[in-house]
Amino acid sequence: MTQRLTVVKVGGKIVEDEERLQAFLDDFAGIAGPKVLVHGGGRSATDMAGRLGLQTTLVEGRRVTDADMLRVVTMVYGGLVNKHVVAALQQRKVNALGLTGADMDIIRAQRRPVTGGVDYGYVGDVTRVDAQALEALIGHDCVPVVAPLTHDGRGQLLNTNADTMAAEVAKALAGAYDVALVYCFEKPGVLADESDERSVLAHLDHATFQSLKEKGTIQGGMIPKLQNAFDALSSGVGKVIVTSADHLLSGRGTVITR
Amino acid sequence: MTQRLTVVKVGGKIVEDEERLQAFLDDFAGIAGPKVLVHGGGRSATDMAGRLGLQTTLVEGRRVTDADMLRVVTMVYGGLVNKHVVAALQQRKVNALGLTGADMDIIRAQRRPVTGGVDYGYVGDVTRVDAQALEALIGHDCVPVVAPLTHDGRGQLLNTNADTMAAEVAKALAGAYDVALVYCFEKPGVLADESDERSVLAHLDHATFQSLKEKGTIQGGMIPKLQNAFDALSSGVGKVIVTSADHLLSGRGTVITR
Repeated sequence: MTQRLTVVKVGGKIVEDEERLQAFLDDFAGIAGPKVLVHGGGRSATDMAGRLGLQTTLVEGRRVTDADMLRVVTMVYGGLVNKHVVAALQQRKVNALGLTGADMDIIRAQRRPVTGGVDYGYVGDVTRVDAQALEALIGHDCVPVVAPLTHDGRGQLLNTNADTMAAEVAKALAGAYDVALVYCFEKPGVLADESDERSVLAHLDHATFQSLKEKGTIQGGMIPKLQNAFDALSSGVGKVIVTSADHLLSGRGTVITR
Repeated sequence: MTQRLTVVKVGGKIVEDEERLQAFLDDFAGIAGPKVLVHGGGRSATDMAGRLGLQTTLVEGRRVTDADMLRVVTMVYGGLVNKHVVAALQQRKVNALGLTGADMDIIRAQRRPVTGGVDYGYVGDVTRVDAQALEALIGHDCVPVVAPLTHDGRGQLLNTNADTMAAEVAKALAGAYDVALVYCFEKPGVLADESDERSVLAHLDHATFQSLKEKGTIQGGMIPKLQNAFDALSSGVGKVIVTSADHLLSGRGTVITR
């Protein structure tokens, strides 16, 4: 039987609330076995951009990243958020190592071409994850803490969606491990009724997803998140859960099934 | 015979001049054998602090680091500068891995106590370098790119002088390698006459250093840099050179001797 490895994605709303972040990291430190943390930080980036007089433009929830905005996300994701999380995990005796895709050439991407008239700028779509390099680090008891930045191998850093990076890392490690991918966010799971937090779906399969999407029950940023989840399942990831960052160890949330 | 390993420290003036940085990284990529890069970034930090409305206070060339300034240096050193350098080295097929002292718990420090009435704030003095962890990375052909940040093991990041970090890394690796430590800055070496760039001293021993310091020929930031150099030599580092970042491969500069 292959060993269980847990990939956890945690979003901006948690990372930027110091009390919730510390509680979440206590839980993350408690996960047994090898693990990887992928973090966001979009709200901090928007805040920092504002303080520097830069306006943030989102298209379908994705940040348009010109050269100045790339500097902001490189600072905030790669520096401010990543190193804060790494130091907080080291305090918990978790041997965290902060990484972007450029570090050890772990995750390459190509700059997204202009599509449908939208130029996202320095935004990358993942083309390759170096599973061997990640496995070597994990084999040395390292816990990679991945910031949502990649590079193109020609010196260019690229802003990359953290949900997608978590799915790509999970898929790459599925060859060597029985991977569980956990998307943590501010709600307790996928809701049948957005206005009722008790309406968490215990399970969600692809046919139900399609039907709830058509009805408009599932909308906005949840759509690409779930698309990443189904993509991971069909690429060998053993288990995908969407849950609240406050319930990481509870087993609650929505289990995604094919 | 033990293998030669080169630790290079490069300062802010180079890191922040894109053309000189790219030329410097070409040279750094050309160094044979295992190597480590330690970088500064103080000017970018001062610039970013200014844009965020924070005033920079230096005492004897060292930055007073309150909580807001710590956020700035964490962003700038750990994110902006470090990831830019890592991506640029990957472009040159150098397997760079960006690190702060918190990553893999590589370099611990303790917060500097108030001395002589000066409270430097979140500034750390190095207490331990994990030579084994660094050696394991280097043994996997990684090239550590170290930002001047450490941690205290209790979740607190600390701003730490890059010259000192380079010396501490060199000393820690001197057990396993024949270490050469190269301090690169904007001048061609230690000068006998500050106004004459042709007055480079080919060699500088400790007695001459003391005498030039008393005469005021050697002054300012060069004094702690050279104290780090002599400290490294007396702790097993094989060779220390102070040279221009533009002449990294030329063999020119000042060789420090005991």
